[in-house]
Amino acid sequence: MPSSHALRLPEAADVEAAAERLRGQIVTTPLLESAALNERLGGRLLVKAEMLQRTGSYKFRGAFNRLSRLDGTERGRGVVAYSSGNHAQGVAAAARALDIPALIVMPSRAPMVKVEGTRSHGAEVVFYDEASERREEVAERLAGERGATLVRPYEDAEVVAGQGTVGLELAAQAGAAQAALDAVLVPCGGGGLVAGTALVLAKVCPAAELWAVEPQGFDDTRRSLAAGERLEIAPGAKSFCDALLAPTPGKLTFALNRRLLAGGLAVDDATVAAAMRDAFTYLKVVAEPGGAVALAAALSGAFDCRGKTVAVICSGGNVDPEAFGKVLGETA
Amino acid sequence: MPSSHALRLPEAADVEAAAERLRGQIVTTPLLESAALNERLGGRLLVKAEMLQRTGSYKFRGAFNRLSRLDGTERGRGVVAYSSGNHAQGVAAAARALDIPALIVMPSRAPMVKVEGTRSHGAEVVFYDEASERREEVAERLAGERGATLVRPYEDAEVVAGQGTVGLELAAQAGAAQAALDAVLVPCGGGGLVAGTALVLAKVCPAAELWAVEPQGFDDTRRSLAAGERLEIAPGAKSFCDALLAPTPGKLTFALNRRLLAGGLAVDDATVAAAMRDAFTYLKVVAEPGGAVALAAALSGAFDCRGKTVAVICSGGNVDPEAFGKVLGETA
Repeated sequence: MPSSHALRLPEAADVEAAAERLRGQIVTTPLLESAALNERLGGRLLVKAEMLQRTGSYKFRGAFNRLSRLDGTERGRGVVAYSSGNHAQGVAAAARALDIPALIVMPSRAPMVKVEGTRSHGAEVVFYDEASERREEVAERLAGERGATLVRPYEDAEVVAGQGTVGLELAAQAGAAQAALDAVLVPCGGGGLVAGTALVLAKVCPAAELWAVEPQGFDDTRRSLAAGERLEIAPGAKSFCDALLAPTPGKLTFALNRRLLAGGLAVDDATVAAAMRDAFTYLKVVAEPGGAVALAAALSGAFDCRGKTVAVICSGGNVDPEAFGKVLGETA
Repeated sequence: MPSSHALRLPEAADVEAAAERLRGQIVTTPLLESAALNERLGGRLLVKAEMLQRTGSYKFRGAFNRLSRLDGTERGRGVVAYSSGNHAQGVAAAARALDIPALIVMPSRAPMVKVEGTRSHGAEVVFYDEASERREEVAERLAGERGATLVRPYEDAEVVAGQGTVGLELAAQAGAAQAALDAVLVPCGGGGLVAGTALVLAKVCPAAELWAVEPQGFDDTRRSLAAGERLEIAPGAKSFCDALLAPTPGKLTFALNRRLLAGGLAVDDATVAAAMRDAFTYLKVVAEPGGAVALAAALSGAFDCRGKTVAVICSGGNVDPEAFGKVLGETA
């Protein structure tokens, strides 16, 4: 079980402290803009390009912030994480930077680019069978056997605070671009990125509405926000957004998100694929399916950008070349 | 013919003046780095991601700098440019920003993404037949008929000075990353980007060797540097690097490059395609063939990076999805 320390609710000051710890360790990812996309939308769209972050997603931020808080004894015993691939790479790279042994539990069907990326950072990878095992249980057992610290992907105040540094950068860059944000759309799996971002934007950019965007069928946060309680996804749902398949909102993240978000939106796979193609054509960046859902909500009109200034976070770019080539070959 | 003003040799001070004019008009493109690529090379590789520039290549810099020097009468008469596609988009976007009519002469086989990009900025596009017409002559005739200013892609001091602002940013970003550059590799067609970059790096980063990188068969600058005089390509050469098919070095650019460069390198199409895949996998950016030649020289060992700190400019990302999908599908 997570310690009570890890499950306390983070505050904006925790995000600011995380930004200090991350200074010099992370890429200040650019805020991109396309005249052609602005024209199409009849609004102003700003895209936070977090696929350009170390390890190809925002996850390095939360992982490094969390691991940098471990003491010498804890570091020696190592860390264990479970992840479909981006948290895996984030923890592996942060562990290597801090000289901590890392073991990562991954689904056997994770994209190869994510498995290879995790191994390239020196982490040990253990696969589990998605049909017969629960990844949390596998990871808890392995951490217990080794006396290692389990680094959860979103049920952790320091992880959420680290992810929130994306929002801190975004607010500063929007200010420099003289953009008064009406709304910010954020990809949502367990809800860590949107919760951390919401925390800090509520302080530095209170006029902006925050929206969580999920794949259709995995819109547990959208439905939970509407219901006022944590709901699970319906069984049998499928999506190619492998990074966003969490079955229910995190306790910690939902406690923040129900207070701070305007609501949730859902987009289907075809809409996401179109957004990946537009990111390729107009922004020249590689967005993975889960990383492109917020962009998809803006470009498809699921969120109406007309007359507004809207920022979206593109949260990752770890997609296999075959899968990306297939998306490029599909017509809209 | 270009005016004598345009054919004077630019100096480092012209690049600094261009940077002032471009402030707030351009993206400060990031300098990317991948731990995996550094490990593979046994050195440190920094990648200036100019595909993230407005219009998807560095060409907007030179075009905006040149057009901003036109007086009111000249602006009213408009501009004409000839280009395989990136200078076209740069001139079109700069002309729109400054409210100047633009006509662009393009080859009939230019990538669709470049033709559509040029039109999307409001420019008029005229195609010429590569087999039977010389694009300079078509453009000169059209400019003469309209009294418009012909904006050449590299035989122009203000264009070269604008392109050199890439080098100015690169030097500052390398300094911030505590990287003492041993070498900088730059894609080369007519030689404007490398000449402008060389001008400014000779001043602010004199220890770095500058190398021009060209597609195999179009290595006129490499051969000209070795011979000490401007040579033409051999007839019948083919390459998919559509942005870098200039048949001979520019007079103005060669006068600078023969003084400032360490030499030239050539890479074949398969090597370039491998670099495009690596940019996709490790850097999450879209490099077009011509934009990837310098990266290809570093990653293939054509330039030996072992034990060195090397920066490469990735100069553009305007590639059709079908062509990019094909590159992703090829195995190394």
